[in-house]
Amino acid sequence: LSRSRTSSIDLHLDLAASPARGRRAALERTLREAIREGRLAPGSTLPSTRVLAGDLQLSRGTVVDAYAQLVAEGYLTARPGSVTAVADNAVPTPSQPAERPAPVARIDLRPGLLDLASTFPRAEWLRAERAVLRSAPDASFDYGDLRGAPELRTALAAYLGRARGVATTPERMVICAGFSHGLAMLLRTLRLAGVRRIGMEDPCLPAHRAIVADQGLEIAPIPVVADGISVDALEQSGADAVIVTPAHQYPTGFTMSSVRRIQLVQWAQRTRGLVIEDDYDGEFRYDRQPVGAVQGLDPEHIAYVGTTSKTLAPAVRIGWLALPPALVDPVITANQHGSAVPPALSQMTLAHLVDNGRLDRHLRRLRLNYRQRRDMLLHTLTEAAPTISITGIAAGLHVLADLSSAGTTEERVRSVAERHGIKLAYLTSHWHGPPATPMQGIVVGYARTPSPAFVDVINDLGGVLRAALAANDR
Amino acid sequence: LSRSRTSSIDLHLDLAASPARGRRAALERTLREAIREGRLAPGSTLPSTRVLAGDLQLSRGTVVDAYAQLVAEGYLTARPGSVTAVADNAVPTPSQPAERPAPVARIDLRPGLLDLASTFPRAEWLRAERAVLRSAPDASFDYGDLRGAPELRTALAAYLGRARGVATTPERMVICAGFSHGLAMLLRTLRLAGVRRIGMEDPCLPAHRAIVADQGLEIAPIPVVADGISVDALEQSGADAVIVTPAHQYPTGFTMSSVRRIQLVQWAQRTRGLVIEDDYDGEFRYDRQPVGAVQGLDPEHIAYVGTTSKTLAPAVRIGWLALPPALVDPVITANQHGSAVPPALSQMTLAHLVDNGRLDRHLRRLRLNYRQRRDMLLHTLTEAAPTISITGIAAGLHVLADLSSAGTTEERVRSVAERHGIKLAYLTSHWHGPPATPMQGIVVGYARTPSPAFVDVINDLGGVLRAALAANDR
Repeated sequence: LSRSRTSSIDLHLDLAASPARGRRAALERTLREAIREGRLAPGSTLPSTRVLAGDLQLSRGTVVDAYAQLVAEGYLTARPGSVTAVADNAVPTPSQPAERPAPVARIDLRPGLLDLASTFPRAEWLRAERAVLRSAPDASFDYGDLRGAPELRTALAAYLGRARGVATTPERMVICAGFSHGLAMLLRTLRLAGVRRIGMEDPCLPAHRAIVADQGLEIAPIPVVADGISVDALEQSGADAVIVTPAHQYPTGFTMSSVRRIQLVQWAQRTRGLVIEDDYDGEFRYDRQPVGAVQGLDPEHIAYVGTTSKTLAPAVRIGWLALPPALVDPVITANQHGSAVPPALSQMTLAHLVDNGRLDRHLRRLRLNYRQRRDMLLHTLTEAAPTISITGIAAGLHVLADLSSAGTTEERVRSVAERHGIKLAYLTSHWHGPPATPMQGIVVGYARTPSPAFVDVINDLGGVLRAALAANDR
Repeated sequence: LSRSRTSSIDLHLDLAASPARGRRAALERTLREAIREGRLAPGSTLPSTRVLAGDLQLSRGTVVDAYAQLVAEGYLTARPGSVTAVADNAVPTPSQPAERPAPVARIDLRPGLLDLASTFPRAEWLRAERAVLRSAPDASFDYGDLRGAPELRTALAAYLGRARGVATTPERMVICAGFSHGLAMLLRTLRLAGVRRIGMEDPCLPAHRAIVADQGLEIAPIPVVADGISVDALEQSGADAVIVTPAHQYPTGFTMSSVRRIQLVQWAQRTRGLVIEDDYDGEFRYDRQPVGAVQGLDPEHIAYVGTTSKTLAPAVRIGWLALPPALVDPVITANQHGSAVPPALSQMTLAHLVDNGRLDRHLRRLRLNYRQRRDMLLHTLTEAAPTISITGIAAGLHVLADLSSAGTTEERVRSVAERHGIKLAYLTSHWHGPPATPMQGIVVGYARTPSPAFVDVINDLGGVLRAALAANDR
């Protein structure tokens, strides 16, 4: 047999310095590290306990115990004849570590993405989590309330009332793993209750259509108008529920007017329909007077959905539903099996950030930064294409630039942008079917590019627009 | 109008000490706190900017900016005539904070529950998270790979190979939010692929039956035998997949023998069926030679599911699937809409604990403690009922005590236990239909009771058994 015998010298053991009772632990640790680092290869045989005990001036019992422990952990195997060897599967089959997704395009101006270096507040998060770990009762780490951690529901009910005009209580809130997960929970509940058709804004985010379709529900496209959606069309569609983005319609950026808000509530009351309010970027309002959630007008007919994906980071994976009282139990029941409540620790950490005003402070900082970016973007686009009409500027993290008004088309802009390595979202892809208007547009997200590069990136975009217009003239 | 005027004195402002540029921030903070704590009630009017600036010796612009910021945050409202007041919804409608679930029964010996004071390693978790926050690239906080964080898949593939004999790679792993979530993901995938019938051990955990039924799948009960499940019965059931607990069958505690393991693999190969291996407590093995996962015998036909719910805490909400290569994409596709990947930070923190051997060390500590508890439990039960037969003692966190062998019944034990405030799980509730054997039993979990109370609690259980036997004699 070609198996090598391992001597204590290979192990870089220095146990003399260890206190007597720590020697077994030190021996175990040293062996474990040697195996993990490959200094002790799978299959190699260890010295007998007698020999190693002699070499290291340990009692034989100490070595026996250490070997036994490592056998139990799977590092070593005991072979017939008391030979102890490194287990064959002690280190994994060589395999590449899993790869990170490919790096993003050089310039990514698609909406919905963030500059994570400045958005996710690592130090604040750690500080809050430390405070939570110091004080949270042990029971917090058990299987918890399916509605989510009480601390977070309490903190958010207060925060949403103050910051977004949401009328709710901790008992009416359900924590989810982000907007898409919350929407899927709601839709599943509606489907089990017999709902078949969901109204959706036209245009809207294609990914949301996929969530509705995935739940086996029918989609009724409802035209977006400049001050909201057409409630007449909603009425005629026969939809049982409708998903809307009142604070900052995606992708047009329109804000729903008071008149439309009231019409929408009246529709819900008249038809006993449900309004699902997607408040994805409501925290980012650059006017001084904030626009509250529609939910506050009629908490019995409106389910409000919010998320941390735009305010902290997508990977935080915490969102919330503020539900009509009659929907709380059905939502829990419909989603109780194989549920995916976010970790209690994340929930309590977020609660701490909210309760201590840290989230407010963080949002204030972001708001100032985004307002400057938006101003720079508007300035550059208008300079490049003086007749361009831009909507959605009062809020959120993206604008819609009407290319038709600028005198060019999506196709022309796309061909120049792609040559410059600039990724954009195009209005045309947001319609349910054939576009309801001939308008051509680009949806520009301004939250992704890191601040130092922002001026250059926006100038590049201006250049793209100029080049597209010039192509037009030729 | 009864609204009070607020003077700067009410605000406990002490700005003199602040550096000039921090004064606006200090003013904002003070106002926010006063509103949150109710010192400034909703509706109360603030001093004019001119008056407050004079009182505090600040520039008027500073006060104007601070008010504007608090208006934008929803704390204040600007009323006609430049009057600024505390917003009506600045503090939430009085409502009880959400309540924690009721405290557990005085003595809870049901299986599946942990003593969270000793199980969740708060300090280790925080240390690992600090290290992760210091070094993780910003891209880690973006929408990530739907399979889960690459760091965690890499760490777990190595760990599972070493500790559980699982043959997998990071590419074949999918991270989920715990066992139930992972099972639901798998079952949904199978259903979409046309699978209709799932074999389940009889007896098994009732909650798992609910997950299968919730996915609209049919259950084929497969009898548990002393060395596994009846593979003949599985064959005859026509099931397309089967859920098994080979390391420590729940609730009987049986370990699946090599013969049954091979039969099971042969069934999967012959019928192209899928074995779903639920390795819920495989880390806790008190024999020195660990029993590896069945998955290692045939990674193409066995989907392995593991979780942190028994090793760290249920609220960690991280589990994993090690999948046959052909199932990876279908699982991702079937669960991509409204998915609930755990937060990246939790995933990377767990990866750090695994990579640094901290999880191993933690498990070693737990294993020693649980082995002592198990020994004490066996001693006490055997003393109270000398003829009692107890299974499942080699591993896991529960045993099955056969009451028939002791000469009593579930009903008698239950009536005494309930009088003593002791919660137990009873074998009878674990059958799919009528019990397959007349055996009566209690399933005793020994991981929940905190260590200092354990001796007393187990003595109480011994007393219950004695009393039940005495009732028998009368």
